[in-house]
Amino acid sequence: MIKNNLLLSALKGNVVERPPVWMMRQAGRYLPEYIALRKKYDFFTRVQTPELAAEITVQPIDIIGTDAAILFSDILVVPQAMGLEVQMVETKGPILPKTISNSADLAALIVNEAAESLSYVYEAIKVTKQKLDNRVPLIGFAGAPFTILCYMVEGKGSKSFDKAKQFCFSQPELAHDLLTRITEVTIQYLRNQIKAGVDCVQIFDSWSGLLSPNDFKEFAQPYLLKIANALRGESPVILFPKGSWYALEDLSDLNIAALGIDWTIHPALARSLTHNKVTLQGNFDPNHLLKPISEIEKEVKQMIDAFGKDRYIVNLGHGILPNVPVEHAKAFVQAVKSYK
Amino acid sequence: MIKNNLLLSALKGNVVERPPVWMMRQAGRYLPEYIALRKKYDFFTRVQTPELAAEITVQPIDIIGTDAAILFSDILVVPQAMGLEVQMVETKGPILPKTISNSADLAALIVNEAAESLSYVYEAIKVTKQKLDNRVPLIGFAGAPFTILCYMVEGKGSKSFDKAKQFCFSQPELAHDLLTRITEVTIQYLRNQIKAGVDCVQIFDSWSGLLSPNDFKEFAQPYLLKIANALRGESPVILFPKGSWYALEDLSDLNIAALGIDWTIHPALARSLTHNKVTLQGNFDPNHLLKPISEIEKEVKQMIDAFGKDRYIVNLGHGILPNVPVEHAKAFVQAVKSYK
Repeated sequence: MIKNNLLLSALKGNVVERPPVWMMRQAGRYLPEYIALRKKYDFFTRVQTPELAAEITVQPIDIIGTDAAILFSDILVVPQAMGLEVQMVETKGPILPKTISNSADLAALIVNEAAESLSYVYEAIKVTKQKLDNRVPLIGFAGAPFTILCYMVEGKGSKSFDKAKQFCFSQPELAHDLLTRITEVTIQYLRNQIKAGVDCVQIFDSWSGLLSPNDFKEFAQPYLLKIANALRGESPVILFPKGSWYALEDLSDLNIAALGIDWTIHPALARSLTHNKVTLQGNFDPNHLLKPISEIEKEVKQMIDAFGKDRYIVNLGHGILPNVPVEHAKAFVQAVKSYK
Repeated sequence: MIKNNLLLSALKGNVVERPPVWMMRQAGRYLPEYIALRKKYDFFTRVQTPELAAEITVQPIDIIGTDAAILFSDILVVPQAMGLEVQMVETKGPILPKTISNSADLAALIVNEAAESLSYVYEAIKVTKQKLDNRVPLIGFAGAPFTILCYMVEGKGSKSFDKAKQFCFSQPELAHDLLTRITEVTIQYLRNQIKAGVDCVQIFDSWSGLLSPNDFKEFAQPYLLKIANALRGESPVILFPKGSWYALEDLSDLNIAALGIDWTIHPALARSLTHNKVTLQGNFDPNHLLKPISEIEKEVKQMIDAFGKDRYIVNLGHGILPNVPVEHAKAFVQAVKSYK
C-alpha cells in the first residue's frame, strides 16, 4: 500500500529500478523549517509532542524528497524511560547528571515499565503515518545497548568514552547486567514502535567502533543479535555499527536485513565481507556535501556503481551536518533518483 | 653503542629475543613525578625548557622501564613555529585563536625559518641523550601534515574535524598548498631532530582515520610518503596513521620501517595487509590497562603471540590514559620483558 516501496524492496533484497535514498538526521538542523520550530520549542518538547515530532519527521519528505521518513526522536529517550535524567543542551550535546557506576545504580533502573512510558513516541508514529499518507515508509529506531551504556556510564558525549569502556573492562559482570536490561527495554520499545506503525527499524551503535574486534564480540554483538532475533518476522532491521567494519562478516545474519557502514570502508570490501547476504546502507562522508553540486552528482554515481544498485540503500555514513546547504542535500537525493 | 638495542633491531626487521616495548604518552600525566612538575611549570614551559623536557622524557625509563624514550614535546610546536599561536589549556586541549581559511592566511605562514626556530627541541634532545647515557634509544616525532592541517584549520580538538575536512573538500588547492608547506617544515624539523641525536622518528597522523580511503590517498598519503622518502638513510621512520587500517597495504613502503596500528584491527589482518614487509607497532587498547594485572599479563602474551615476536614493537593503540595506575603500566612493560 505504500506508494514508494523502494526501501522495503531493497531491505527484502529484491531487484529495484534504482536504490532508495534517505539521510541520517535528515529531519533536523540544516533545514530552515526545522530551525524555525527549534526557536519556539526546546528539544524535548519537540520530541515529546507528537504533532511537532510528526511535522519535523515529514519535513524532509516534502522539502528534500527522500524515499523514507525516519521518526524525529533521540536514542536517549531510553535512558530517560529507565529513570535517568537527560539534559539536552542545544549544539552542545546531552548531559546525564546521574550516571551508572555500581550495582545500586543498576538496581534503581526502571526496566519493565520503561518502554510503556514512551507512549508519546508511539503517538508520534501514528500521527506521522497519517501525515505521510502512505507516500513513503517510516523508519523507527533505537540506540544499540553498548551505545546507550556509553551515555549512561559516561554521562555525556565523548571522543573516546574511556569511562564507559573502563566500566565494561573493569566490571564486566555489571556491564553485562546493564546491557541485558537495556536490551530488554529496547526490544519492547522497538516492538511498540512496530505496533504503532513503523515499517522498519534502525539500531544505531554509534560508538561500537571504539571497541576492538574482541570487545565488540563481548559487549556489542550478542545484544545486537538478541534484538534482531527478537524482532524476526515483525520488522526488517537495519543495523548501523558505526566504525565496526571488522564485525561486518559476523553481523551478516539472517535476522538483519541491512548493515549501515561509514565512509572508512570501501563498498567493494563491505560487499565481500558480507558475502552479498545483506543489504548495505551508506556511506557518503557528510562533509562531501560541502563540495560543489556537480561533484556531489559525480560521486553519488560512483558510489552506486561501487555498491551496485540492488541490495543497497543510499545514505550518508553519519548524520547530515548543520551547515549543509539545502540545495546540496536536494542534489544528493536527486542524483540517486536520476541514477542510470 | 646503545645498550638496549631492541627497538632499533625490531625496526630493522632483525630477529630479537623478545619484542621491545614503549607506550605512547609514556612521559606524562599518569606519573606522579610528572604531575609534580606540572604543578610548578605550565605546559609550554615544560616543552620549551630543555632540562625539564629531558627530565620528563627520562622519567618512564627510570620508573617504568620501557625499552625506548620518546621526547616530551607536542605536535603543535610546528604550527607555532609557522606563526600560529597555540594555547594549551590543561586537561582541555589546545586552542589556536587564529586559524587558516584562505590564501592570505596561508601566505602569512612562516616556512623557511620555521624548523630552525625550534632550537629548544634540538637542545632538549641533546640534554636527553646525555641523561639517557646510551641506555635506550630516543624517539623523535612530529605530527603528520593532515593532522597538523586539522588543528590549523579547526583551531581546536574535535571528534570529527568537520571544518578541517570541509576545507580540504571545498578548497582542495589551498589544502594541498598548506599540506605542502607543513610537509616542508616537518622534513626539516625531523632532520634537525635526527642531527641533534634522536635514533628514530615517529610521525603521528592522529586524525587520518577520519578520512575515507580515497581522501586519505589524496590528503594524507602523498605527504607521509614524501617525508619518509626525504628521511631515507637518515633515520628509521615509524608511521602511526591512527584509524587508517585501510591504508596499511599502500603504506607498506620501503622507506617506512614500522606502521603503528590501533586496537580496531586484529594483528593477523594487519600482518596480512602489510605482507610482512614492515614492522608493526601497537595495539593494546589503553583502557585495558584498567583491568586487573593478571589479565593485563595474559592479554600481553596473547597480543605478542598474535603479532609474532619479530618485526613487532609492543605499544598501546593510543596514548596512555591519566587514570592508569603506575603499577599497571609497569605490569604491561614487565609482561613484555618476561615474554617466552
